[in-house]
Amino acid sequence: MSDATVQSEETIIREFLVPLAAGYPGALGLADDCATIAVPAGHELVVKTDPVVEGIHFLPGADPSDIAWRALAVNVSDLAAKAAEPIAYLMALALPAAPTRSWLTRFAAGLAEAQAAFGCHLIGGDTDRTGGPVSIAITVFGLAPAGRMVRRATARPGDALLVSGTLGDASLGLALARGDARTRTWSLQGVEATYLEQRFLRPTPRLGLREALRHAAGAAMDLSDGLLKDLGRMCRASGVGARIEAARVPLSTPVAKALAVAPDVLVDVLASGDDYEILVAARRAALPDLLSRASAAGIPLTVVGEVVDGAGVTVIGSDGRPISLARSGWDHFSGP
Amino acid sequence: MSDATVQSEETIIREFLVPLAAGYPGALGLADDCATIAVPAGHELVVKTDPVVEGIHFLPGADPSDIAWRALAVNVSDLAAKAAEPIAYLMALALPAAPTRSWLTRFAAGLAEAQAAFGCHLIGGDTDRTGGPVSIAITVFGLAPAGRMVRRATARPGDALLVSGTLGDASLGLALARGDARTRTWSLQGVEATYLEQRFLRPTPRLGLREALRHAAGAAMDLSDGLLKDLGRMCRASGVGARIEAARVPLSTPVAKALAVAPDVLVDVLASGDDYEILVAARRAALPDLLSRASAAGIPLTVVGEVVDGAGVTVIGSDGRPISLARSGWDHFSGP
Repeated sequence: MSDATVQSEETIIREFLVPLAAGYPGALGLADDCATIAVPAGHELVVKTDPVVEGIHFLPGADPSDIAWRALAVNVSDLAAKAAEPIAYLMALALPAAPTRSWLTRFAAGLAEAQAAFGCHLIGGDTDRTGGPVSIAITVFGLAPAGRMVRRATARPGDALLVSGTLGDASLGLALARGDARTRTWSLQGVEATYLEQRFLRPTPRLGLREALRHAAGAAMDLSDGLLKDLGRMCRASGVGARIEAARVPLSTPVAKALAVAPDVLVDVLASGDDYEILVAARRAALPDLLSRASAAGIPLTVVGEVVDGAGVTVIGSDGRPISLARSGWDHFSGP
Repeated sequence: MSDATVQSEETIIREFLVPLAAGYPGALGLADDCATIAVPAGHELVVKTDPVVEGIHFLPGADPSDIAWRALAVNVSDLAAKAAEPIAYLMALALPAAPTRSWLTRFAAGLAEAQAAFGCHLIGGDTDRTGGPVSIAITVFGLAPAGRMVRRATARPGDALLVSGTLGDASLGLALARGDARTRTWSLQGVEATYLEQRFLRPTPRLGLREALRHAAGAAMDLSDGLLKDLGRMCRASGVGARIEAARVPLSTPVAKALAVAPDVLVDVLASGDDYEILVAARRAALPDLLSRASAAGIPLTVVGEVVDGAGVTVIGSDGRPISLARSGWDHFSGP
């Protein structure tokens, strides 16, 4: 079967994108210039845009269904950290050449999977040809009870700091997918490497934490640029400092195994991006409620440190002394 | 004075973008992962994203304040056509290299001008370095009374078709800015050329038509890809056809002058992009109300044809016979 390119923007929309809008009345079948979003009484809209670009956020030649999943997941992850419920998204798709039917089919399939998993619909967007790499700029819309969005700037000294899931998986997964030389020392089994690569390719927003966060979080944000950098942002926004104990940071078995033979893996765990886990600051009194709600949701939350007076993030090693890392997180302009 | 580059994403946000968020509480000073939008009772949100990319939507080396104005204006123009009131926008900015302070200063100044003119605020976004051209993906948010957004798919046979302002200005302005050879035959004066170039560089959304459209439009959309192409879209969405009389299409003096010596300018008028005027279908009974409200708003609306049964757009020449044009509008994949 031939795999023809699709030259027309209107064909891309009609054949591949309109089905993703089915079931959301305000999308108007992607046949209008704008979409409408109805916000129920007592609620407000929570909005975010976070584009993904080939060569920066995903590898050239990646499976289009993984690219699509990732493009939506990284945005929904922010809503998850804010205890907002995803309802809809816009997508501006920029492609360097007319895409093939098979590329579009897989891309749309990845979006369909992701939006079914996250509970939202495509409601509009734009498709352009560009001189640059593939770029997918999604804007996601969520609902929260008015005034109840969980914020970043509300951490207080004395709060416990927790993270969901395990950290460093995606960073190691990316290194494996790239075939970095250092991955050979880790001696991981095939199934372990696959697990880590999937954690990079298919981040899963922690939507199940919504009730826990809404009821019991003092502050929260998602981890996209590494724990140290993102925690530093929470601290600056809140006017506080933080202490993290490296030994308490939750690790998957393959990451623990790699760290045992390659101490530099600690940088992946603390200071690399793509975790898409949630960082939470919780008042001590709310901690039992937070943990029991997270447990009921089946999502592990682990205390890794605490919020302190002052500024900056200190990492304490297993000998009780501060650790200094070679780098502290990803910056899109100055690089790692 | 030196013009250093700004390496840090956080500095770009803090120094150049945070001031654009002042006055919108839900922006949270751009210090959170997400922004919130409160929607008043009885209203719904109207949303749109339309990125602009260097080399496609603006010329390389363009003044950053014009780029910024354009990036917001093309999105607000869609809201204007839907009779929605702009309130806020998100911006994902992708730059191929660390920008200079002077670039950022002018870029932010253009956004500040545009958002003051249109009545909206920056509430969030993202800044990335990219391997491609400069790209600005804005998502704009407007308010409309619930269920009252003016739609594209609701034109009916018998409706009058109108356009705001004058068409073709921006297309000729772009040709002039590029120094296309054909512009020499037009013999335009400097002030005329400047007028047309400004119409390209600084499109002005027709927000003043909001009340007129809300009360008296049967259907509407903004003109971004050329009258024939965009009218074709309205016709397909509405299941109707249309007849346009070329001689009735409103022209500015410089465009009329160019058309008098260069008949191919008719293609610029009917089938080129970047007009950012509004196409309206109006029931005959509503026409007087529409025209008097537009007149009160100081924005010219001109009847150019009518909606008919059937499908497709026919252009009638001054001899009363259908005209066939060399091309019918801009498509981002197959080109003009």
